[in-house]
Amino acid sequence: MTAPRPTAASPTHAPLEQFPIENGELIIGGIPLSRLAVRAGRTPFYAYERKALAARVASLRAALPPGVKLHYAMKANPMPALVAHMVGLVDGIDVASAGELKIALDAGVDPLETSFAGPGKTDEELRQAVAAGILINIESFREVDILARVSQALGVPARVAVRVNPDFELKSSGMKMGGGPKQFGVDAEAVPDLLADIGRAGLAFEGFHLFAGSQNLKAEAIVEAQRKSFELALRLAGYAPGPVKFLNLGGGFGIPYFPGEQRLDLAPIGDNLAAIVAEAAERLPGAEIVIELGRYLVGEAGIYVCRVIDKKVSRGHTYLVTDGGLHHHLSASGNFGQVIRKNYPVAIGNRMADAPGEPCSVVGPLCTPLDLLADRMPLPAAEPGDLVVVFQSGAYGASASPQAFLGHPAVSELLV
Amino acid sequence: MTAPRPTAASPTHAPLEQFPIENGELIIGGIPLSRLAVRAGRTPFYAYERKALAARVASLRAALPPGVKLHYAMKANPMPALVAHMVGLVDGIDVASAGELKIALDAGVDPLETSFAGPGKTDEELRQAVAAGILINIESFREVDILARVSQALGVPARVAVRVNPDFELKSSGMKMGGGPKQFGVDAEAVPDLLADIGRAGLAFEGFHLFAGSQNLKAEAIVEAQRKSFELALRLAGYAPGPVKFLNLGGGFGIPYFPGEQRLDLAPIGDNLAAIVAEAAERLPGAEIVIELGRYLVGEAGIYVCRVIDKKVSRGHTYLVTDGGLHHHLSASGNFGQVIRKNYPVAIGNRMADAPGEPCSVVGPLCTPLDLLADRMPLPAAEPGDLVVVFQSGAYGASASPQAFLGHPAVSELLV
Repeated sequence: MTAPRPTAASPTHAPLEQFPIENGELIIGGIPLSRLAVRAGRTPFYAYERKALAARVASLRAALPPGVKLHYAMKANPMPALVAHMVGLVDGIDVASAGELKIALDAGVDPLETSFAGPGKTDEELRQAVAAGILINIESFREVDILARVSQALGVPARVAVRVNPDFELKSSGMKMGGGPKQFGVDAEAVPDLLADIGRAGLAFEGFHLFAGSQNLKAEAIVEAQRKSFELALRLAGYAPGPVKFLNLGGGFGIPYFPGEQRLDLAPIGDNLAAIVAEAAERLPGAEIVIELGRYLVGEAGIYVCRVIDKKVSRGHTYLVTDGGLHHHLSASGNFGQVIRKNYPVAIGNRMADAPGEPCSVVGPLCTPLDLLADRMPLPAAEPGDLVVVFQSGAYGASASPQAFLGHPAVSELLV
Repeated sequence: MTAPRPTAASPTHAPLEQFPIENGELIIGGIPLSRLAVRAGRTPFYAYERKALAARVASLRAALPPGVKLHYAMKANPMPALVAHMVGLVDGIDVASAGELKIALDAGVDPLETSFAGPGKTDEELRQAVAAGILINIESFREVDILARVSQALGVPARVAVRVNPDFELKSSGMKMGGGPKQFGVDAEAVPDLLADIGRAGLAFEGFHLFAGSQNLKAEAIVEAQRKSFELALRLAGYAPGPVKFLNLGGGFGIPYFPGEQRLDLAPIGDNLAAIVAEAAERLPGAEIVIELGRYLVGEAGIYVCRVIDKKVSRGHTYLVTDGGLHHHLSASGNFGQVIRKNYPVAIGNRMADAPGEPCSVVGPLCTPLDLLADRMPLPAAEPGDLVVVFQSGAYGASASPQAFLGHPAVSELLV
């Protein structure tokens, strides 16, 4: 069987220019990849680049109006050193569990600029959050009752916002997280009752959180969702027991992973947010507009690196067998929520100047055909010892993968 | 939106009778579920039952001819206590990494009855395997070279079998792992050359390993694959540098997970293996026939248990929000290689006598719509504090899930 060669008309991956190439090697954090692999002590590893993270935040700030606050949703990448780096770059951190909260606090985040969302917060997590003094995005009537008890016991009123399940959907989104029946947030039509409960319970109301979906590459869909979210928040603010201080309009900014995907155009999003900020200054005086991003901030700043262990030709098809795979990078294997498997951008990091040859497949060491990092991709001729790089791997990589699967060592993570 | 009620014609889950019910509670290892949850100290947890594991091995042995050896492929569930229990029940253990090898050796397995397969064994793993004295299933020409060097350095000839990529496929298999180009094993047509290399290298040749696929519920497909594997091994044995001592015909026996799936019929498989054993006694004298099973031995003996944290009604649809989810049980969420999500069998373990009510969804605490354990399933009316049980969870559960995702605590595992 011979795999088909891509034709000139095949869709290609969006150009990736975040890391330079010198002498045929990818350079991460100023270090040639093969040297970084020695420094790491072993493969596989993830490497996240401080400079690329800072550059992404800077370019985003340049595209957004000055009044918008930028939060990092650390579920995208909870590596403690990376979170600490992000604390110095963004205005706040969003956590999704008590485990993430600990990492954020250890990283030095300001509790006033930290928020906690999640549909199944335990009683203990809510206690920890109140004690930490962070903002809790309330997602059900039950949480109001528990927070009332906790606030009384601790003598500290819980700081709360309401996570709203909107009455619309984010179009073209990788994951829809609002509209229709959902486990996230409180249905918009039930929010007035919830706000009344919050007022009666004496909690410190601070605002609203609306999050319509994630991994969206269509600016017009994000613009529409932000506009509708803002208008919904304006309507709901009339029922609030106090002034709105924070209005978290969510995120959902996507990055290009697969052939044919184009980068998100930030210009219309920036224009729309500028209009929202101006309108908020009149209609919600004192309210800060917050954008919460995870993947968009960190996804392109990271790579996954594994080493070719064996090169096998089976019935005319070449397999590069590596020491990494789906146990470290489930998304790149195509097994994390994807309906149709597509290739992430993959390269041979120490042969970046070589021309691609016949299509080959990059697989891992696991005894399952799911363990596939590149399927029939034209790559330079590689040999055992070479370093396979999976780009766009800074988000939902190590922490979103079944690392214990088949008993291989856990992956290491470097911030360089 | 109202979810559709299943009609009389809807496919249902295969009956599960491995655990009794008393006073409306599921009983595991003789212990009512709610008491076991207290013993565990926290939810979520996995519980695997010793008795069910022993009963499965016993019923399988009764269905197979006495000459067949039974191996446990521990990648299905590597919990150390469970592996130790299995060592006392089966004839050998198959490992897929050095990490698994350590667990198996610590569990007291006989190295003579332990084998190691995997397409990307590292040099170090091969050294460890030779030092341990286990059987190595060779999957490439490279491994012969390395094993020759290691054998010389250690003064111990490596015990090897050849993993063959057959020239046929296992029909109706959940995962095809043989036939066509594959990263697994060595193409059948290249095996004669490989056997010559093994002879020249002075390795201790012991047999063949053929594994055509997994999770197959059609007895006739398994019979056909075992028959073809045996015939292929007979042909290849003519090229071997020594007599065949082990012939591992793989496994692939499936268990019913989803509505409409029926249990595998063992009778034709037993008959077929009896014929193979008789034929092998003549044509491969001294060879032991080995069947290697993972999921089939342990999958039905385990449950996943999580607790309802919140009950939310969103636009007419009820969500039971639990403290467990895809981070502990990726397969049950439908995100591990499944193309179409289907429900595992799910129950409220402390309300087993209650009649099912309106369909509801069981979700986890993660901020992603992928975190779904039951989608519109008719379940008894449940409340916070109740225990959700996911059956058929003894294989590819804890170790095959991204436990660090979103920073929640790791799941605990109990052998009861």
